[in-house]
Amino acid sequence: MAQWRSYLSHLECTACGLHHDADQLQTVCTACGKVLFARYDLDGVRQAVQPSNFACRRWDMWRYWELLPVRDPANVISLGEGLTPLVHVRREAAAVVGLERGQLELKDEGQNPTASFKARGLAAAVSRAKELGARSIALPTAGNAGSAAAAYAAAGGLASHLAMPRDVPELNRVEADVYAAEVTLVDGLISDAGRLIREMAPRNGWFDVSTLREPYRQEGKKTMGIELAEQGGWGETCLPDVIVYPTGGGTGIVGMRKAFDELEALGWIGPSRPRMVVVQSEGCAPIVRAFERGERFAEPWQNAQTIAAGLRVPVAIGDYLILDAVRETRGTAVAVTEQHIREAQLEMGRLAGVYAAPEAAATWAAMRTLRRSGFLSGDERVVLFCTGMGLKYPAPVA
Amino acid sequence: MAQWRSYLSHLECTACGLHHDADQLQTVCTACGKVLFARYDLDGVRQAVQPSNFACRRWDMWRYWELLPVRDPANVISLGEGLTPLVHVRREAAAVVGLERGQLELKDEGQNPTASFKARGLAAAVSRAKELGARSIALPTAGNAGSAAAAYAAAGGLASHLAMPRDVPELNRVEADVYAAEVTLVDGLISDAGRLIREMAPRNGWFDVSTLREPYRQEGKKTMGIELAEQGGWGETCLPDVIVYPTGGGTGIVGMRKAFDELEALGWIGPSRPRMVVVQSEGCAPIVRAFERGERFAEPWQNAQTIAAGLRVPVAIGDYLILDAVRETRGTAVAVTEQHIREAQLEMGRLAGVYAAPEAAATWAAMRTLRRSGFLSGDERVVLFCTGMGLKYPAPVA
Repeated sequence: MAQWRSYLSHLECTACGLHHDADQLQTVCTACGKVLFARYDLDGVRQAVQPSNFACRRWDMWRYWELLPVRDPANVISLGEGLTPLVHVRREAAAVVGLERGQLELKDEGQNPTASFKARGLAAAVSRAKELGARSIALPTAGNAGSAAAAYAAAGGLASHLAMPRDVPELNRVEADVYAAEVTLVDGLISDAGRLIREMAPRNGWFDVSTLREPYRQEGKKTMGIELAEQGGWGETCLPDVIVYPTGGGTGIVGMRKAFDELEALGWIGPSRPRMVVVQSEGCAPIVRAFERGERFAEPWQNAQTIAAGLRVPVAIGDYLILDAVRETRGTAVAVTEQHIREAQLEMGRLAGVYAAPEAAATWAAMRTLRRSGFLSGDERVVLFCTGMGLKYPAPVA
Repeated sequence: MAQWRSYLSHLECTACGLHHDADQLQTVCTACGKVLFARYDLDGVRQAVQPSNFACRRWDMWRYWELLPVRDPANVISLGEGLTPLVHVRREAAAVVGLERGQLELKDEGQNPTASFKARGLAAAVSRAKELGARSIALPTAGNAGSAAAAYAAAGGLASHLAMPRDVPELNRVEADVYAAEVTLVDGLISDAGRLIREMAPRNGWFDVSTLREPYRQEGKKTMGIELAEQGGWGETCLPDVIVYPTGGGTGIVGMRKAFDELEALGWIGPSRPRMVVVQSEGCAPIVRAFERGERFAEPWQNAQTIAAGLRVPVAIGDYLILDAVRETRGTAVAVTEQHIREAQLEMGRLAGVYAAPEAAATWAAMRTLRRSGFLSGDERVVLFCTGMGLKYPAPVA
C-alpha cells in the first residue's frame, strides 16, 4: 500500500512570481494582489509514483494525493468527489450537433457530491483550510459553490457563511439550510456578494475561500484534467482534441491547464493540448468579448442576466489566466443565446440521457456554432463539461 | 487489456427452480410466476479473473462484466452508474446516533446518474433488453425508477413508457419530460400503476422492466454488494457488520444477498455476512409487519402513506426473498416515524454533509432504534444505504 504524501512545496504568484509559504493560510499575493498557485516538487513525485499506480487507489480525486495540497490524510474531508464518468454520446446523437464522424463525450460533473463540479475545489480548499487551522469558512456564491462549501464544512465540523444573490436557484438555498450554513442574501450579483464577504470575513475570523482568492480550490479543479489523462490511458494521445467549458469564474479551464502542464513536466502526457473553448451566455460574456477584442483582461459586464446562474459572473479575477489558456491552445470563445441554452437542455436529455444544468447545456448549444464557424470539422474527439445537474434549476419547457 | 465476457449461463426460478433460456427476453417464471434469477458459470469466472484485476478497469459498475448479463459491450448503455463512495461519518457525528466506538459510513447512491440507486438496475435491464431486441420499455414507478429508465432509454435510443402516481415528487415528472418519456399518471399507488403497465405493455409491444418481473435489474443492484467487497479490500473481513437498507420493492437487499453468495462461491469473500436491516416508514411497513409476525410472505399494506415515495410500496413481489435475507443474516426490520425521517434529513445534512432523500434518511433515523433495542452495541462497522439525493423532494423544515 502506497504511503500518502503531498509534494506541495510552496505558493507562487501567477503575476509577479513572488514565493509564499504554503504551510500557513494564504489568500492572494501579498505584493501584487494577484492569484497564487500551489507548486509541487515534481522530481519527487516522478520518483514516488507512476501513472499506473493510481488505478488501484481510492475511488475519488484524492487518489492523486502526491499532486494535491493536504499533507495528512486525516484532514481530508471527502464526500466522494471526482472520478466522474466520460459519458459516451451515441453516434446519431452526436451527428445532430455536427459531430458526424468524431466522438462526443460528456464529463458528467453532476455526479459529484452536491451535484456539481464545485465539490472538487471546495473539498480541497476546506480540507486544507482545516489542516491549517481554520474553524469557519466564508464565500460569495451564485449557488452551487455555496452548496458545496456548506456540505464540506458540515462533514468536517466547520462553520460556513455564504453570501448569495437573493435570486439564486431555490434549491441552492434549501441545500444551504440543510447543511446548516449561515446565509446572507444580497440584492445584486455574485460580485456584490464578494465585496460583502471580503468586508465581513476578516472582521469575524472567517477564512475566505472565494474563487482564486485562496490557492487550493484551484487544486481540486485540477483533478478534472488529471482524470481526463487517466481516462484516456495516459501518454501522448490520451487527451481529447477539444474541451468545451462553460465559463463563469473560469477556474475549471485554469485548473486543467495547470494539470496538463504538471503532467507534461512529469512526462506522463505529451506536449499537445486540447483546444480550449470558453462558452458563455449572451447575457453575460465578458471573456468572449475580451477574446474577440484581443485583450488579456476582461472589462466588467454590465447588467449581467442569464438563467445559467453559474455564468452570471460579470468579472473574473482569473480573466488573464483563462484567456491565456484559450489562446495558447488555439481555442476560441463563443456566446450562446438563452433560448438555445433552454433548447439544449431538452435535446441533451432526449438524445444523451443527461439532464444538465443550463451552464452545461450551453456547451451543447455551442457545438452547432463551432461546427458552422469551421472551428470543428466533425472528425474531432470532443469533451463537453457538464458542470452540474439540471435538477436545481427551473424546468426547461418544450 | 482483459477481454469483455459475460459468464451468464441461464435463468433459474427462485421458487420452483425451473431453468429458462437467458438469451431471449424473459419476465417471470413461465411455470409458477415467481422471480427469475440470472445464473453464471462461476467456474469460468474463477479461471478468467481475480479480484485484483477489477481495480484497473472502467470507473463504473460494468468493471464486473463477468458477473453481469450483457454479452457485447457495444450494447451497454452507460451513464457512469456505480462505483459510489463510502462516505466516512466523523466520530462525533456517528456518536450522535449511537455509534460511539464503531464506524459509520454512507454508501452514497445519490451520486449515480439520475441521482439514485435505480440507475444500476435500469442500466442493466435496459442494456440487456436492447441486446435481446427490445425497442421500447415500460414500467410503473414511484419516481426514481422512472427517471432512471427514461434516461437509459434516451441514451440508448429506445422509447420509454412510465406509469406513476399523480403525486410523485414533481422533479421526477420534470425528469421524465426532459428524457422524453411517455407518462401516464395514475390516481393511486405504484401497485395500481403496475397493473396498468401489465395490461398495456403486451398490447403495445413494450418490454416490461418492472421490479423483479424481469431478471436483470436485479443484476445491476447486485453491484452494490460487489462494490462493498471491493471497497473493503476483498477477503474474509471486507464486508461491514451491518447494512441498513431502506426497503420498498427490496431489490437492493435481494441483489446484495445474491452478490455475496456468488462472491463466496468464487472464494473472493468468506462465509460471514453483514446483518441486513430493513427500514420502512410507519406509514407503509408490510415487510416489518411480516418479519415481526414470523411470516415469509407479506400481506399488502392498506392506505400506504409516506413522504418517502420510494417506500410507498404496499406489496413487494420479492417479499420472501427480502425476509429470507434478513433472517438468514440475523438481521431485523424496523419502522420509523415520518417526523423522525424529516428530522434525520436535517441531522444528516448538518452532521455528515449529505442531503439524503427521505428513504435514505429513514436509515439514519433507524440507528437510534437499533441502538436502543440492543441490536447495535456501538462497536460495529455500519453502512447506511443512501439510495437517493434529497433534492427531488419537498425541502425538510427545521
